[in-house]
Amino acid sequence: MSRIAETARKIKPVDRRFHEKAQARLDILTKPQGSLGRLEEFALRLVGIYGNEMPELPKKIIFTFAGDHGVADAGVSAFPKEVTPQMVLNFVRGGAGINVLARQAGADVAVVDVGVDYDFENAEGMHHMKVLQGTGNILDGPAMTPEEAEKCVEVGIALAKEYKSKGYNLLGTGDMGIGNTTPSSAICSCITGLPVKDVTGRGTGIDDEALKGKVNAIEKALSLNKPDPRDGLDVLAKVGGAEIGAIAGLCLGAAAEGLPVVVDGFISTAGALIAHTIEPGVAEYMFSAHRSVEIGQGAMLEKMGLEPIVDLGMRLGEGTGSALAMMLMDSGLRIYREMATFADAGVSDREG
Amino acid sequence: MSRIAETARKIKPVDRRFHEKAQARLDILTKPQGSLGRLEEFALRLVGIYGNEMPELPKKIIFTFAGDHGVADAGVSAFPKEVTPQMVLNFVRGGAGINVLARQAGADVAVVDVGVDYDFENAEGMHHMKVLQGTGNILDGPAMTPEEAEKCVEVGIALAKEYKSKGYNLLGTGDMGIGNTTPSSAICSCITGLPVKDVTGRGTGIDDEALKGKVNAIEKALSLNKPDPRDGLDVLAKVGGAEIGAIAGLCLGAAAEGLPVVVDGFISTAGALIAHTIEPGVAEYMFSAHRSVEIGQGAMLEKMGLEPIVDLGMRLGEGTGSALAMMLMDSGLRIYREMATFADAGVSDREG
Repeated sequence: MSRIAETARKIKPVDRRFHEKAQARLDILTKPQGSLGRLEEFALRLVGIYGNEMPELPKKIIFTFAGDHGVADAGVSAFPKEVTPQMVLNFVRGGAGINVLARQAGADVAVVDVGVDYDFENAEGMHHMKVLQGTGNILDGPAMTPEEAEKCVEVGIALAKEYKSKGYNLLGTGDMGIGNTTPSSAICSCITGLPVKDVTGRGTGIDDEALKGKVNAIEKALSLNKPDPRDGLDVLAKVGGAEIGAIAGLCLGAAAEGLPVVVDGFISTAGALIAHTIEPGVAEYMFSAHRSVEIGQGAMLEKMGLEPIVDLGMRLGEGTGSALAMMLMDSGLRIYREMATFADAGVSDREG
Repeated sequence: MSRIAETARKIKPVDRRFHEKAQARLDILTKPQGSLGRLEEFALRLVGIYGNEMPELPKKIIFTFAGDHGVADAGVSAFPKEVTPQMVLNFVRGGAGINVLARQAGADVAVVDVGVDYDFENAEGMHHMKVLQGTGNILDGPAMTPEEAEKCVEVGIALAKEYKSKGYNLLGTGDMGIGNTTPSSAICSCITGLPVKDVTGRGTGIDDEALKGKVNAIEKALSLNKPDPRDGLDVLAKVGGAEIGAIAGLCLGAAAEGLPVVVDGFISTAGALIAHTIEPGVAEYMFSAHRSVEIGQGAMLEKMGLEPIVDLGMRLGEGTGSALAMMLMDSGLRIYREMATFADAGVSDREG
């Protein structure tokens, strides 16, 4: 059995008895029942996933997976391709958006080269797990071979396992890759069955004409490569990307290890959808970080039954949404752990 | 001139030149322009309000104003009235939702008795600024006298000034008062002109029948007391509440002192609307913390041109939404302060 199939098989349903225990505690805290809304949901889900009635605040890490895209040469992005390695080095130096927000959230950042078209020469402070030097142009053929696609997913699986053993117990996804909203929209259209134009947005900020070209390019790539929507690895290999595969692997790996995983924005949601196509049970371990400006994200979230935690008009990626969501998930757990009960505080419950 | 009129006159429009300076900096940080969405908006607005091109992270405090309501005896709430003082003591001991979330946000909590129907006997750890022992029942007459309404607003004005002098520069509102969604819906209907049934919700959790009774009670109170929708103090006196007046005062006081103020949920938004009716210029200094479950909040926010920061299905009050919003406002300022520029990081801009 392949490592991916083995990982998918390890994913178990969350133990509902812990949800009941969490709900019972939430209902005796000094507030009207349910009045903290989704903060209570976050606490309940985390208690269930950890299988622990009183979990500590989690040790957090966000993985920013980087990869390049052959299709970026086709004018689908507002930024040139060399920005991918430049931003990777910015992450390593701590100057990017993800670094700032992860510091605030108390999360570490792991920068992972899965498929950047640049030789980092063993630069320190990052994971060198390169599977390929940028994907092939999906207008000419598949993004990568089936073997490469498997290897990309395995990168995420291996990291989930490695960081669990280091004591991390809340993982987050992030991405960097000029051009990567294009494969993400392709994955979205293929798996949800929605027309390309309904799931394709402006990425880093292209104009109307470039958007039209992007839609045409995705339509062409899908009709040329014919990915099978029921086969996540096939979709990944034919129209995906290296960092998207690693994100899918991190989701599968986290769930297999019994850890919650925060799925950042549009690109991460496409990766999560690949994981979900491989094993739908992964969704119980996922938290959607934020509502992206990219229009394709909603349909993918709906397919997985996820509701974003914040909606702040963001479209940066990197894991920036994951960092914000982790703060609010902590809020839920803090409420659960620290609030006084009606009995402790001598407060009358509604029965008075 | 009254203290309130004097405070309202001190409110100046925010200096737009600082918005331009903030925007110029946001646009050279290593991200596509505008890609951090509302985090950028928070930074820009704060730079404008402070009139400081590089503000420090603010020193934060949330004011939880408490008051009782005569109308609570009319079955409009799921909880008995004695819960107001019980919860005040819970705040002072640090066991309530607001204490937990304020600790996470790095905000202090000031607990203020403005109108609780209970003698706290100079209990430590809270502000004793009682104007009245619970409002009158608005089904029988006005909630309070015009003089009492002024005094409640002055409580908030005085605290904004006092805490500015103590070095606090981000203020947040919160409330505690069994029955206080009833006066809040009354204020909302009166000032927005919307029918009572469209702006009245379940508060802490009443059933269908009690909701019907609540709507009838508010309609009766409005037709009996006839508040003038153009006169914020008249509305406050006739159908408002002590804590709602103090919230209005805190908003006016913050704006007069040149400080941003975070407006929590439904009750706080009703207080903010009283302030806005007195002086519309206050809105430039306000941030709406969260979208409350209470259905009346939206129309009030629209009238003031505010958009909530988070939407997590919350309906607790106390300032819990303010605490979460403060974390995300900090996120915006951190992005603004800490991110590398394109030039610093050697990253190609889109013209690259």
